Amino acid sequence: MSIETLPILFSDVVNAIQSCDNHYAVEAQHRLNSLTKPIGSLGQLEEIAAQLYSIFSGAIPRPLHRAVYVFAADHGVTSEGVSAYPREVTAQMVLNFVSGGAAINVLARAHQAALSVVDVGVDADFEEAKGMIRAKVRRGSRNMRLEAAMSEEEMFAALQVGVSVARAAHGRRETLVAVGEMGIGNTTAASAIAAMLTHQSVDALTGNGTGLDTSGRARKQQVIVETLQHHFGTNKSPDALEVLRCVGGLEIAAMTGFILGAASLHIAVICDGFISTAAAAVAQAVAPAVQDYLFAGHCSEEPGHRPLLQLIGISPILNLGMRLGEGTGAVLAMPLIESAACLMTEMATFQSAGVSEAKQA
Amino acid sequence: MSIETLPILFSDVVNAIQSCDNHYAVEAQHRLNSLTKPIGSLGQLEEIAAQLYSIFSGAIPRPLHRAVYVFAADHGVTSEGVSAYPREVTAQMVLNFVSGGAAINVLARAHQAALSVVDVGVDADFEEAKGMIRAKVRRGSRNMRLEAAMSEEEMFAALQVGVSVARAAHGRRETLVAVGEMGIGNTTAASAIAAMLTHQSVDALTGNGTGLDTSGRARKQQVIVETLQHHFGTNKSPDALEVLRCVGGLEIAAMTGFILGAASLHIAVICDGFISTAAAAVAQAVAPAVQDYLFAGHCSEEPGHRPLLQLIGISPILNLGMRLGEGTGAVLAMPLIESAACLMTEMATFQSAGVSEAKQA
Repeated sequence: MSIETLPILFSDVVNAIQSCDNHYAVEAQHRLNSLTKPIGSLGQLEEIAAQLYSIFSGAIPRPLHRAVYVFAADHGVTSEGVSAYPREVTAQMVLNFVSGGAAINVLARAHQAALSVVDVGVDADFEEAKGMIRAKVRRGSRNMRLEAAMSEEEMFAALQVGVSVARAAHGRRETLVAVGEMGIGNTTAASAIAAMLTHQSVDALTGNGTGLDTSGRARKQQVIVETLQHHFGTNKSPDALEVLRCVGGLEIAAMTGFILGAASLHIAVICDGFISTAAAAVAQAVAPAVQDYLFAGHCSEEPGHRPLLQLIGISPILNLGMRLGEGTGAVLAMPLIESAACLMTEMATFQSAGVSEAKQA
Repeated sequence: MSIETLPILFSDVVNAIQSCDNHYAVEAQHRLNSLTKPIGSLGQLEEIAAQLYSIFSGAIPRPLHRAVYVFAADHGVTSEGVSAYPREVTAQMVLNFVSGGAAINVLARAHQAALSVVDVGVDADFEEAKGMIRAKVRRGSRNMRLEAAMSEEEMFAALQVGVSVARAAHGRRETLVAVGEMGIGNTTAASAIAAMLTHQSVDALTGNGTGLDTSGRARKQQVIVETLQHHFGTNKSPDALEVLRCVGGLEIAAMTGFILGAASLHIAVICDGFISTAAAAVAQAVAPAVQDYLFAGHCSEEPGHRPLLQLIGISPILNLGMRLGEGTGAVLAMPLIESAACLMTEMATFQSAGVSEAKQA
């Protein structure tokens, strides 16, 4: 798979993102209230249906054309011993995605989502393969404890990869896309981003990643604290893109670009776990209207995930205690989002079905 | 659709229900830990996978053969003004199910579940129709505030309807069935059952049903308190079947029979909302091993639902703030249960994929 490589002016993408017109939400609620069910009885599915109705300006495509994008990169900070798994696992898992054996492969097949893996910065070379997008910016980000994870040029290149992937998705008429990631060390980057954007403590936002023990988690937390001190000192509110550049990662930057690009093209985007949600939080800081296009597939076990979802202002659809990433929680939410679309468009109304309404509201 | 009408000895059904052999759970966990993902990172999906593995003795049928059964009946207690909707809505909604316009029709189509509506006690006559099982025991239960909702004979007839439906499902090789209901007034019955089985207060277990206001809810609660006093007085622990008979309903009894019948035949059953879970709680009181075969599709907004789930000991898969019934929350959980089955059977292992394991657990 190849992606468009023409230069994209990042500010053009950001400026193209528009809030959904509120009258669609009103229209959606009116429609939902006319269906043969007690008012509000479909709970969160009604909110999802109304959001879809707004994103697609009153004409929800049926069925939604689904895809999932897994952005992969390595992280220089792994040399600080912040992960339970060796760095090589990023490349090994990319190969597992290509050969179809990972959790996200299984779920993408089960839920009819086309899967693409985007190498935006894995420290290994890959051959061409079906479903693989080769767009490497650098073989891993730099060690953020010592220097910025990315130069400005590298960050914009990674953002552009994401925008290009979103444009290609739009070209294939995809309407519901999940965004996931693979990158040993990337919960460290996500915790650092979350700390700067939510202003909550590193302690509260740092979890065990893929399987650290207590002392491993303490070391990871110490690395994050030192990293934030190094880059930002007493500056509590640096620019979100500067946070991304200093303590993010190549796949996180690419996901940020992807989310911005998708929102600019009226594609519904499902965030997955902690790391993709960190990318969404950066995207929202850059373009607040992004929120209108975002769904939260689930809330993971990583302690920083919920604060980021709250910062963005989106409610998780699933709460299954997962902590895998890869887009798994996002793809699992697809049948529920599709269900909301079906209910909105296929249910009978009280009038059409001849059902009596409530005696009291 | 017709069902077997030979007499069934209820005690034979109950005695046929066996706990799943624990060694399957151990084997399932071993398999899950070998898959290319951090240990435990699929959260609740791993518990679901292990439960399926146990129910099907190590050979989960792929795909699971899905169906949903909506048991419908009227309730004599509606003459006490306990519902926001008129009694006629039960029959109107049955016709809506038959013509395909209700929420459960939409979701059953979306998730490939065959839908059957079982009239076990609606106060109306229906013509033969596709997907309709006519097994009326009585045109509505009796007014439980004044007399037992069912005679012993009526209750056993309704239980037998449920068992027969489960046997027919087994005959069609269905492996994953959702149980839902329709019956104006049936949250009143479910709250009464919940109060007797959980020993919690009527106040804590009584909600607004399909849309009562505050004074309507107070009246409903008063009716339940008087009903329980009338039937049980100071007896805090009557037999569960006696609770069902006095304060249940025909569709609740049929669901109890259905759940018992399905468990006796090693079919996985998904409970839906408050009312079907009340039926499951009665089933579990009769045959504790039923728990092994039960999934909780979701937790509804009705305040009595969670206490019943806790009594049975099952965790809801979804928490979407729904309160519709009809089996909707159960069918919505089907793609997640199917996902768990797919992950269990299709994912690569660390060994087969050549992925390094964690340096520390």
